[in-house]
Amino acid sequence: MLAGPMIRSHPDVAGRASEALIHCIEAAYACAQACTACADACLAEDMVAQLRQCIRLDLDCADLCLATGRLASRRTGSNVEVLAAALDACATACRICAEECARHADHHEHCKLCADACRRCEAACREARKEM
Amino acid sequence: MLAGPMIRSHPDVAGRASEALIHCIEAAYACAQACTACADACLAEDMVAQLRQCIRLDLDCADLCLATGRLASRRTGSNVEVLAAALDACATACRICAEECARHADHHEHCKLCADACRRCEAACREARKEM
Amino acid sequence: MLAGPMIRSHPDVAGRASEALIHCIEAAYACAQACTACADACLAEDMVAQLRQCIRLDLDCADLCLATGRLASRRTGSNVEVLAAALDACATACRICAEECARHADHHEHCKLCADACRRCEAACREARKEM
Amino acid sequence: MLAGPMIRSHPDVAGRASEALIHCIEAAYACAQACTACADACLAEDMVAQLRQCIRLDLDCADLCLATGRLASRRTGSNVEVLAAALDACATACRICAEECARHADHHEHCKLCADACRRCEAACREARKEM
Repeated sequence: MLAGPMIRSHPDVAGRASEALIHCIEAAYACAQACTACADACLAEDMVAQLRQCIRLDLDCADLCLATGRLASRRTGSNVEVLAAALDACATACRICAEECARHADHHEHCKLCADACRRCEAACREARKEM
Repeated sequence: MLAGPMIRSHPDVAGRASEALIHCIEAAYACAQACTACADACLAEDMVAQLRQCIRLDLDCADLCLATGRLASRRTGSNVEVLAAALDACATACRICAEECARHADHHEHCKLCADACRRCEAACREARKEM
Repeated sequence: MLAGPMIRSHPDVAGRASEALIHCIEAAYACAQACTACADACLAEDMVAQLRQCIRLDLDCADLCLATGRLASRRTGSNVEVLAAALDACATACRICAEECARHADHHEHCKLCADACRRCEAACREARKEM
Repeated sequence: MLAGPMIRSHPDVAGRASEALIHCIEAAYACAQACTACADACLAEDMVAQLRQCIRLDLDCADLCLATGRLASRRTGSNVEVLAAALDACATACRICAEECARHADHHEHCKLCADACRRCEAACREARKEM
């Protein structure tokens, strides 16, 4: 993931890149991948009928993480209010998905890993938000 | 767009489909397409250097519209808090993109059409939000 | 969906818009929505364990339809070889998803509707491809 | 990026995870981010009018990389023909985007970095394809 070098080479950013934003971009793409994979792994479990809510939250979280990772990657012009709303929505999605995945963490390693990715992304969104 | 028939055939929805939510899904996908096309049309304009902010807002709006249209299409389990946050973020993105596109509406038909799509999507998100 | 008016107002297109491409864009976004909704409706069915393959194909098809709908919406510069490959991949995804959904069409209205959307998108991709 | 641990914890995969596929998933998400950021950085350059084709190719490549990264993350059931078509389309998009970005690599560090990410993703798609 080249989020840092990419942002630092943006003509409007130069030396003023936010480390919190860079970390947030990387966490958002990583969480989007983890949630997509966790939804798919849950679907293959014998107890899939009890993992419906987990799959739903995974898919929603993946969508918001991707949208937020893409928005946060853009530094041309300005869209502060929208980025702030996206970061908040993404942090909420990650918190709720992490809580659900954590419930299955003892039985499914993919849920444990996904909960971790969600918590990292939630924290990264909140840090990036604070710096804005 | 089959958003209505699709939601009405969901096993957990049956006769209790929200017309506001269905309308919001359709408006979100339509706005995502319009914003993607408007960003691309702005890029081809002679005055592209003056349309940078418009392109940026178009791309951000397209991302949030797609994420929101996808979230709103899911009715399994429940993810109310996240859907609410996505609808709010999407409405904000649409309002801000519509304002920018409206500034170029006299010169560029694609900006005029895109501003209309954004306003319809903003209104649809707010209606869907009210009903939740 | 404003795919037609948006493309016709693109500065490089003007009167030379391809109706097949416009139809393909609309079919791709509609199919992406239908597949996202069908995956979610299958997940809520009692017999979810027998619908795993259907959900998997729905999710894959939704991803390729969205990517293709977005690519086909761009008319700036030129990217013919990539658009052709995307149209082919999308047509393949739609054909295979339609076949699987058709197997459940008697029991699940959402699968019947989704199979229809997939077949329309497959045909639209092939028409757009022929015209290139 | 947790693509490896996520796939290795999938109930249907266990010890038989393809290292080439894992590498491809990571390269695809990384390339999607790089292309999204490069399109945005090109847009901010003084010479934006000469970077239109580069921006177009970046956006198309980002879309196909994301779709492919998501498809490749799914291991439930089977969708071999579609994954193969997506990998091929993604490799083509990466090759063409890398060629264009390489033309601006001496002037724009973001284009140099993006060309590298595209080449890595193209190679990873071809390796994953060979193993199928």
